[in-house]
Amino acid sequence: MITGKNYIGNQTSAQGDKTFKTFNPLLNIENQWELTEATVAEVEAASNLATEAYKTYSKTSGAQKATFLRAIAEEIEALGDELLEVYQSESGLPNGRAKGERGRTLGQLRAFADYVEAGEWVEASIDTAQPEREPIPKVDLRKMNIALGPVVVFGASNFPLAFSTAGGDTAAALAAGCPVIVKSHPMHAATGEMVAGAVIKAAEKTGMPNGVFSNLNSSGIEVGQQLVLNPNVKAVGFTGSIRGGRALYDLAAQREEPIPVFAEMGSINPVVMLPNALNNRAEDLAKTYAGSITLGTGQFCTNPGLILGVKSEGLGRFVQTLAEEIVKVEPSCMLHPNIAGAYESNKANALAQNGIEVLASYASDVKPNHARQVVTTVEGETFLNNPTLHHEVFGPFSLVVQCENEAQLETVISKLEGQLTGTIISDANEISNHPKVVSALQNRVGRIIFNGVPTGVEVCPSMQHGGPYPATTDSRFTAVGVNSIKRFVRPFSFQSWPNELLPDELKNENPLGIVRTINGVATKQTL
Amino acid sequence: MITGKNYIGNQTSAQGDKTFKTFNPLLNIENQWELTEATVAEVEAASNLATEAYKTYSKTSGAQKATFLRAIAEEIEALGDELLEVYQSESGLPNGRAKGERGRTLGQLRAFADYVEAGEWVEASIDTAQPEREPIPKVDLRKMNIALGPVVVFGASNFPLAFSTAGGDTAAALAAGCPVIVKSHPMHAATGEMVAGAVIKAAEKTGMPNGVFSNLNSSGIEVGQQLVLNPNVKAVGFTGSIRGGRALYDLAAQREEPIPVFAEMGSINPVVMLPNALNNRAEDLAKTYAGSITLGTGQFCTNPGLILGVKSEGLGRFVQTLAEEIVKVEPSCMLHPNIAGAYESNKANALAQNGIEVLASYASDVKPNHARQVVTTVEGETFLNNPTLHHEVFGPFSLVVQCENEAQLETVISKLEGQLTGTIISDANEISNHPKVVSALQNRVGRIIFNGVPTGVEVCPSMQHGGPYPATTDSRFTAVGVNSIKRFVRPFSFQSWPNELLPDELKNENPLGIVRTINGVATKQTL
Repeated sequence: MITGKNYIGNQTSAQGDKTFKTFNPLLNIENQWELTEATVAEVEAASNLATEAYKTYSKTSGAQKATFLRAIAEEIEALGDELLEVYQSESGLPNGRAKGERGRTLGQLRAFADYVEAGEWVEASIDTAQPEREPIPKVDLRKMNIALGPVVVFGASNFPLAFSTAGGDTAAALAAGCPVIVKSHPMHAATGEMVAGAVIKAAEKTGMPNGVFSNLNSSGIEVGQQLVLNPNVKAVGFTGSIRGGRALYDLAAQREEPIPVFAEMGSINPVVMLPNALNNRAEDLAKTYAGSITLGTGQFCTNPGLILGVKSEGLGRFVQTLAEEIVKVEPSCMLHPNIAGAYESNKANALAQNGIEVLASYASDVKPNHARQVVTTVEGETFLNNPTLHHEVFGPFSLVVQCENEAQLETVISKLEGQLTGTIISDANEISNHPKVVSALQNRVGRIIFNGVPTGVEVCPSMQHGGPYPATTDSRFTAVGVNSIKRFVRPFSFQSWPNELLPDELKNENPLGIVRTINGVATKQTL
Repeated sequence: MITGKNYIGNQTSAQGDKTFKTFNPLLNIENQWELTEATVAEVEAASNLATEAYKTYSKTSGAQKATFLRAIAEEIEALGDELLEVYQSESGLPNGRAKGERGRTLGQLRAFADYVEAGEWVEASIDTAQPEREPIPKVDLRKMNIALGPVVVFGASNFPLAFSTAGGDTAAALAAGCPVIVKSHPMHAATGEMVAGAVIKAAEKTGMPNGVFSNLNSSGIEVGQQLVLNPNVKAVGFTGSIRGGRALYDLAAQREEPIPVFAEMGSINPVVMLPNALNNRAEDLAKTYAGSITLGTGQFCTNPGLILGVKSEGLGRFVQTLAEEIVKVEPSCMLHPNIAGAYESNKANALAQNGIEVLASYASDVKPNHARQVVTTVEGETFLNNPTLHHEVFGPFSLVVQCENEAQLETVISKLEGQLTGTIISDANEISNHPKVVSALQNRVGRIIFNGVPTGVEVCPSMQHGGPYPATTDSRFTAVGVNSIKRFVRPFSFQSWPNELLPDELKNENPLGIVRTINGVATKQTL
């Protein structure tokens, strides 16, 4: 069933002579499937098809797009257990996670279907004419969001389903009316091909234009670069490392026509533990955080890589218990030998820094590609003066920074790079005594959590998954939840346009029955 | 009253030793005021104050920000006729325009005041917790827009009031909760100082933090570069040339932390004349367009620099009448000798292109700095093959492209660079016979106009003033109307946050009585 071919629109294609294989990290062997890398000509063909498809797809109704998105979900479901098996063999992730992630992927597709079917996402706004206004008449203006153009989506290594082929970025772009070209992640390209096949089936069944979706394989960076530089491409969605995301951002910024790159990148997700909370429940917190640090082998972008507190007896007990708890966790498999290798070298680099102390490190032998978790600690002053300690160590690693006092804690927070999340661990009412700490944290993150763990990203409208650079390249958008559609749309105004030629969303009769802003007031009224 | 000093927050400052003067283009003499350029230390000081002010100003309530914005409007009004006189002496623009632009500026400030006072601009969204949900409980998430950080605003040469010191960008940023540092436009720096003084007075009267607003003078590009590269600065608003906007965009993209630059740049605002319309009212159209081309000496970003049609007897009559009408217009004064000089050289460059034919050119002697209007024509094929003809000639200049047939017209449109506006001139029902032409135009512009002129940008919620590059650096935003606030905000989520510590917009009790999205449904309900 897996051919190793690219999808150039509805056609499979394998013009190239370079192939690669994916890897089963749990078995520590190569997978059988041979994937063919996309050629320059195939990249061109996919981008041309996407531009052609944009002409009609961008004008497809919300109801039709919803049918398409739901059909994608159905076709992915129809792949059944085979998809989960391929997913597992290309990621080393357990079956429960595979199922959970598939559920999340289907949920995202259906949430976007509901969202665009409901129709209000276009933010329709109408200002009616006032022909008698002095000194100059007021014209009729009507505005709504329209699709930006073909979007390139890069598959994420750590979410083979939910942030790859038909994941959040793809669902958002397709919902917006943008054709999508996926640059499949080389670590799970067979999973990608299966999902791509499902998308193509859905496109054909629901009558979407050829080119609304393409899927390109490549094990290197060239295909991605070609896509980002291709003039047909109008936006990019990426989830991955700071180095990768920044490279794409820089490429896109150097184009004759620069395009938005929405890259969701690294984050160490600082957790601030306030004194009373530490004093009263250091041991419980340590147990909770030992779990959060090692969840999914630490391969979540919201993994708590940094724990901050002021030196105290309570912090001492937290640190001691964390050390005891972390080594009780059974090491698990990383996504790929390269990721396991990067974890080892990043960890070694962090441990080689002056002043860092290992609290506990899983010491026993582990199976190939399994990660030995480590928790470390450092003085506040040392952390402040060493930027290397601010870097993400992708995997089950965390650093506890022990500050001298609250002023130093506030300084440490304010000097942090941008983050996806920040967490405050507090006893009841304690938090109100630390407004500067809270305010400093808020300035550095996209989501702030009270008494919880940063891992676990709820897919809902109120989720902000994004934050100041380098958490993302543009903090004005989210990568999770239906509002992530805004990355791929632009507002468009019609002036004095004939009613019958307006999109339904802006017609006098309000045929979709949506809430619109008419002369500044939200209403479902007709005109 | 005009001191020539910078405003570093509430303090005037003139540490530098470089000064410059503005110019009265109508009288063709230098103005009396001596402006002192900001120094590197002053740039630093302004940016540090802005960052400090951000801590409190970003949390200022909508009602307080509204009071501030309205006070700015009052203080500008209180400057009375003197402001208009200085404005005119630095721009050569007539008194009616000065008054009109002041009215627009006041209107913008008050519109933003109403908008943030109403409070719904934060797009509050609440997803309530489901502690019993299986397999994992759902947390409480609440999201709203918050201010991005200090914003640098570059004054625009062609709008000394409405798109400069306290113009649209400044009003939007202040409304969002962002402190503003204005890089005053050197052509109207005295006007800028007067308005800056009004803003500072308003800030003091309404108790805004010192540093919420600064105003820096400079005749060169260094101060602007320093500001864009300053780590305290989190976003940039610019209105001007493609070269200037792109240079700022490139600088900002090269920062360690890239920041969004919203630059509204060049546009030639294509006008497509359909055959029946030309046949039936060529003469009327020519008269209307002779007016639009020369309005404000062609110094509007929506000036119709390109008129497109298919060769016909009607197009012939249009071209002939346009030639007759355009020379009847009395030449008017440009903003500055440099702008008049650039107009002459850009015009000369356009006229030197192969295949271009002058239809009519104002030939008589004109006063210094006055612009002689020109209309020209060219074959479709020639236009397609010469990118120079696609460039804006800022001033009273327009090019009529005569296409062989409708297919060529469609090609010409689809090959255009991004534009602020596109206009279709059509007889009743004629437009429905040209869907491809309309669709091609829609893909290239931010606002499409039926039977009108592109000049005249209504300030209202449904206005989209923006478009694909190079009309702007990010087509996902508008530079005009209350939605332009979105350039300067980012969504922020609170997870499981204590109700009493939430901003009012997200509290259970909904103390502001605003519409919020609760579990996906828009409502004013409390929780």
